[in-house]
Parts: sequence; C-alpha cells; structure tokens
Amino acid sequence: MEPLNLAEAQQAAARVMARCDRLAEISETADALTRVYLSPEHLQANRLVGEWMAAAGMRIWQDSVGNICGRYEGQQPDAPALLLGSHLDTVRNAGRYDGMLGVLTAIEAVQALHRQNLRLPLAVEIVGFGDEEGTRFGITLLGSRGLTGSWPESWVSHPDGNSITVAQAMADVGLDAQAIGEAAREVKDIVAYLELHIEQGPCLEQEDLALGVVTAINGARRLNCRFVGEAGHAGTVPMTHRKDALAAAAEWMVFIEQAAAKHGPQLVATVGTLQCLPGAVNVIPGEVALSLDVRGPEDRALAELLSALLTQAEAIALRRGLSFSAEEYYQIPATRCNEKLQAALSQAVTAVQGRSLSLPSGAGHDAIAMAERWPVGMLFVRCDRGISHHPAESVRVEDVALAVRAWTKAVSEIALSADSTGGQRVA
Amino acid sequence: MEPLNLAEAQQAAARVMARCDRLAEISETADALTRVYLSPEHLQANRLVGEWMAAAGMRIWQDSVGNICGRYEGQQPDAPALLLGSHLDTVRNAGRYDGMLGVLTAIEAVQALHRQNLRLPLAVEIVGFGDEEGTRFGITLLGSRGLTGSWPESWVSHPDGNSITVAQAMADVGLDAQAIGEAAREVKDIVAYLELHIEQGPCLEQEDLALGVVTAINGARRLNCRFVGEAGHAGTVPMTHRKDALAAAAEWMVFIEQAAAKHGPQLVATVGTLQCLPGAVNVIPGEVALSLDVRGPEDRALAELLSALLTQAEAIALRRGLSFSAEEYYQIPATRCNEKLQAALSQAVTAVQGRSLSLPSGAGHDAIAMAERWPVGMLFVRCDRGISHHPAESVRVEDVALAVRAWTKAVSEIALSADSTGGQRVA
Repeated sequence: MEPLNLAEAQQAAARVMARCDRLAEISETADALTRVYLSPEHLQANRLVGEWMAAAGMRIWQDSVGNICGRYEGQQPDAPALLLGSHLDTVRNAGRYDGMLGVLTAIEAVQALHRQNLRLPLAVEIVGFGDEEGTRFGITLLGSRGLTGSWPESWVSHPDGNSITVAQAMADVGLDAQAIGEAAREVKDIVAYLELHIEQGPCLEQEDLALGVVTAINGARRLNCRFVGEAGHAGTVPMTHRKDALAAAAEWMVFIEQAAAKHGPQLVATVGTLQCLPGAVNVIPGEVALSLDVRGPEDRALAELLSALLTQAEAIALRRGLSFSAEEYYQIPATRCNEKLQAALSQAVTAVQGRSLSLPSGAGHDAIAMAERWPVGMLFVRCDRGISHHPAESVRVEDVALAVRAWTKAVSEIALSADSTGGQRVA
Repeated sequence: MEPLNLAEAQQAAARVMARCDRLAEISETADALTRVYLSPEHLQANRLVGEWMAAAGMRIWQDSVGNICGRYEGQQPDAPALLLGSHLDTVRNAGRYDGMLGVLTAIEAVQALHRQNLRLPLAVEIVGFGDEEGTRFGITLLGSRGLTGSWPESWVSHPDGNSITVAQAMADVGLDAQAIGEAAREVKDIVAYLELHIEQGPCLEQEDLALGVVTAINGARRLNCRFVGEAGHAGTVPMTHRKDALAAAAEWMVFIEQAAAKHGPQLVATVGTLQCLPGAVNVIPGEVALSLDVRGPEDRALAELLSALLTQAEAIALRRGLSFSAEEYYQIPATRCNEKLQAALSQAVTAVQGRSLSLPSGAGHDAIAMAERWPVGMLFVRCDRGISHHPAESVRVEDVALAVRAWTKAVSEIALSADSTGGQRVA
C-alpha cells in the first residue's frame, strides 16, 4: 500500500486535530485539561475513542484494566496482530496531543485500510492506554503493564490522593481488580508494538523536520547529592579559608554540563533543584543539597558518565576540605527500539519527507513496558518549541498529515514483511 | 608607661572573663544571650558596667541615647580625651565577647592607670554603646551615631517588631527623644577613638597570633541578581539546546570565586542565597535568583571587582542566550583606620607578642560611625575558629591578658605622643 495521497492525508489530519480537540473537552476541570485513570472522564474518553475505532471497521472492547482496544482483522481471522497505541490519560493542566495523537493517528491508518477494504497478513490492533502518566496514583504505565501482565500485586491497594485504592477506583467504574490478569496478552498474539508520539523536545524543530524515528527511550538515574562545608561570615573569612559548599557545587555543575556533552551528544545531565543552607546574603553557605538527573539511550554510557560525575564531585570536595555524598533513588534502564522496525519507520519517513532523523526519546512512554514482551518501534512528531505537559503544547496539522502518511505506509510495509518472513521477523 | 607585668595582666584578664560571664547573665531569655537596645537588660548592663568604670576611678554618666560613659581625667581637668569603646548590645542567641570584650578591656587599661595614680596628657574616656547590632530596630550603630550627632530625624519614629517606636522605647526607659542631640560630642573634645574587638574571622588563628591591627573596616556592596533562561524537560532537551539558568549561575559562581582571589587577598565575594525555579528534579531550571555580597578594605578595588563580576555575568548570559540582571540594594564605603594609630597599635602588639599582623575587618563596628568625626584605630583579638554571633563564640584568657597589656601600652603611648605634637597629632 502506498502512502495516502495528499488530499486524503490532509482530511485525516484535520480529523485527528478535531478529535484531539473533542477529547480535550473531556476533563475533570473546565479550564484545564486533566483526565486521570479510572475517572468518569477516562471512561467517557474510552467510549468516544471506541466509537471512532468502530467507525474505522474495528471490533472494539475495553479490557480488564480499562484500556480501550480495537482489532481490524487481517487476511486470516486468527492472524497475530501488529499493535499500535499510546495513552489517553493526561497530566494535570495538560496539552491535548501527548498520548492522544498516537491513538488517533493509528485510527486513521486503519481507516485508510478500511476505506480500501484492504486486509493485511497481520491483524492491526489499536490500544488507548488508560494510564501512562501516573497522575492519579503516582505509579505509572498501569495501562501497558495490564497488557504485559506485569502488574505487581501491591498495585491494587495503592491509594490515590484521596486514599481511594486502585481496586476501589476500579470497582467504582465497573472494573474488577480480581480480573486484572485477563488484560494480559499472549506473546504470540502480537508481533510488534508501534507508538507515535509528540517529541516533547526541540530536536525535530531544530532540524526543520516533521517526523523522526526513535532509537531508544532513555534510561534515567536520579540522585540526591550533598556538599557539606562550613558556614561562615561573608565578611570576615578570606576566600582562601573558606569551605563554601555552594562554590564547590558550582564547580561541580560546570563539570556536569561539560562532561555530559563530552560523553556523547545523546546524554543529558540536569541539576534541577538546589537548596543552599543557611541561605543568608552575608553567610558563606555551609551546605548545599542538589539533585542530579542523568539520562541516555545506552545504559553503559550512562553509567560511565554518572561514575565520572561522582568521581569529580569527590575530588572537588576533597580538594576543598568538604564532604560529598550522593544517594541514588531512581533508576530505569534504557529501552532499545527494534532495529528492523526502526529501518521500516525510517523508510516510511524518508518516503514522505525526503529524509529521516533518528533520535532518542528523553521522556518515558508505554513502549517501555511493551518492550518487555514485544519488539517496539516509535515515531516522533515535531511539537512547537518542544513544549509538553502544558496547555501550550501544539502540533501543526501539516505535520500530522505527514505523520498519517508515514504511519499508514509503515504499518502496511511491516505487516507485509512480517508475513514474508513467517510472523516472527521483527524480533 | 610599660605594659602591665604578666601577673597583673593575668589578673586583669581573669577579671575581664568573669565580667563577660556576669554580663552574659543579663539577657531577655535565660537559655540564650539576647540583650537589645533600650530594653530593661540594656539599662541593667549599663548600671553594672558603670559600677566597674567607677571602681576604675572614672566619673560616669549615661548619655541621652543610652550609652554608658566614663571619664578618667588627664593632667589637666579639661584635657581632650582619647576615647575607648565598643558595644554592650547583642544579636539574638549571641556570644558573650562580641562588643563586651572591648569595653571591659578598656576598663582594665584605665584601672592600670588608676592603680598607679597615673595621669596622662589626655583624659581617657570609655563608652559602652547601647546599640551597634541593630537587633531590635533593624537600624544599626544607634549608640555611636548618638556621639557623632548623626541620627537621622526619621529614626525616632522607627518601629521595632512590636510596633514600638524608638522614641517610645526611649521614654519607656526614662530617656527623652527630644534630648538625643545632647549625646553628640564636640569634635575638639575627642582626639581619637580606639576599639578592641574579637576578630570574628579565622586570620589570627591561622597565623597563630593573639592580636592584630585593623587596617580598615571593609566596605560592602550587596546585590540581588537573576539569570533568566528557559525551563525545559530534563530528558528531552539536548545539552546543546538548553538555556539552563542554573548552569549559567554555576559558571558565574566559579568566576566570582576566582576573580575575588585574583583581585586581591583582602577582597571577598560571596553568593549566600540561591533560589532555582521551577525547582524540580526533572526540569531544567529556567530562572535562578542569587545574592552577591562583595567586601573589601578599599572602595576602588571593590568597585573594580564588582564591575568585573557583572561584566562576566552579562557575557555568560549573552553567550548562553539568557538574560542577566542585578540590583544593588546596599552599599557602605570602606572605613580606613588612621595610619598613625595603626603604627602605635602595631608597636604595642609587637611589644607583647613579638610581631604584629595587619588585617582588614570584614564585619562592621562602631568605629565606622566614629570615623566620620575622629581618627579611629582598632585592635583584633583572636577568637576560636572565627565563630561569632553564636553561643560558641570563645576567646582564650591568655589572649585577653596579651590584649590588656597591648591596650594599656598603646593608650599611654598614644596619649603621650598626642601631647608632644600638640593635641591634633593623629589625624
């Protein structure tokens, strides 16, 4: 199947934008888009998305953890599926594209097949995950971990901010926590998972490109760090006698910035919080607490960077007569996207925009969970200035038209190539 | 007059230490020393110090702004005076030497003259200032500005934390705000002002010396500064695309530390407060507010340093695509100590401890106000680890013995040399 022609793609893109607007109206607050897992708005969004899936020729169901699902049959009724998806939940005061764009673009791809009554060697399924952001319960990826069957037992008793547990919240919307396991899919029934998402970063915009192919979802490590020196009188202690914790932290932060850039263009390191004690204009800081967030698409390079940063912090502290400590409190490994899926996506992107760009994803996605069971591939769509998790989140309708064309082409090509290699070809 | 012999000095030092302890009991709270201007404790301390002055052969009075004063006559009844002093008020939760040590050591110098019934060509006066710290009203040097006659009119209506004005507080302890002007001393009646004080810094301790001579009281300038960049996702924005306000501030802080040391050993620059916005582990800081405090004994060198720092901040901001702003909200020029008084003090210090050390004062003192009318000289006494404004403030009794010897010698020598050059010799 060829990409949609321009007029078809423009119509599809306009429909996607209109549907994003429709979904943005389904919010717990009128003036700010917020739609959280297992809320009445979640179920309302599921119903609407289910209607759109059905109109695209899909059989639809809501699974036992609250994901809305649709299946467009392949040439054989029990064919394994190529699964497309993203999430329908939002952060608080969210934009209208993060998650939703991927679900709605997938529906357009199926719509294009349906319009031509075209059946592929694989079924095409779509899932609108009920929770990726973790806004309500603080735990994330509840939707995709339903499909992978990897919900920890403890999750059902996890409370939200009003002390309502996940199990109770499920019951409140007619779901049964006892049936969570039924959402899990057999590995053999799904060939691969593909997700389209806004970039949430500035790289495509900088390259003047609408679309890019994700190489990996960055691994991340987060630490709470601390320099302890000696507070002192800002007027009476000479520069040479100081044990200034902020001066030490400043030296380290300069190193962090330089080292991250030096270790590789895809590594990032951020000091996002800094508290300075005692914190008075005329007192030399005796103690500084600061956070460190490092991310990158390769776990080994990330570990090497982190090790270099901590070694340098120790050296700075030692030279200055301070102490340094760091405690890692969060770690998630990188998720590699499947090479063959990347190649297929790059081919489709090149076909519609002349060239492709490969880039890592700095943010997390449902594909992290899905990659535990299936090969995953991801396509990024440019968003205005990289802004996300904010009402100003914005995409261009012409970029969405390119995305629909590329997605439609990629889905067909992957389904066809999967068939020619016997169904287990992308892994 | 020769320095006191060792036994005499040791007895005097023991008395000074005991009297510091006595004064430390006069506090508005039992568990933490706090004695503020125009409080019942202030008047109580005045009475006790007045008794000690009287016992040293002085005529005593409390002046119209609440300073306790004493005069030991010279060879002629109307001789101009060499004025010794420091302050009797404290910060909250204070140490027991900051201010008080200077007043009590001065009493020992007069005591030594009195014991030998020795009269100098100059009268020797002592003042225990009622307010230097500004703890109660937020405005400082109220005691010494009484003597210089430089109280602004507005001060009498200035409120404390309980909305009690200075004028009301004066009335509450039997003083009359209408009579403030009567505390002012004629320029011709005082030859010079000498102040002994704890160093409140680590320089003497580092040099293994008990005493040092102050060259100048540092001028100071304080600014609120701000870098504004662009907040962003810590995972999705590559290092090269960032406008990280904290990274810019870090680069500047490293420069500040290096530039202060490079511009001269007596200059200090401190970033004591830093707020980072929005302040989340996974968000690139878009804005950083930080304070800058620069001090030094020479106004010109200080201005050059500050100018270099601000130029560099602008350059960093420009290169990184951020904006930088700075607002100076406090400025006090440096106070030079009189050269001849410095020489006389150095001679006395060398006589008692073998060598002298000249150093600037990083903290403010009553001598700042007094220097507007009279030549000033200051002697510093080592304090433990430079700790001050804290209950752990501590001096050694053997250092105080050296201080009494040096002070006694210096007072005599200065009074004698003043006479030989006709009374206007030190200016």
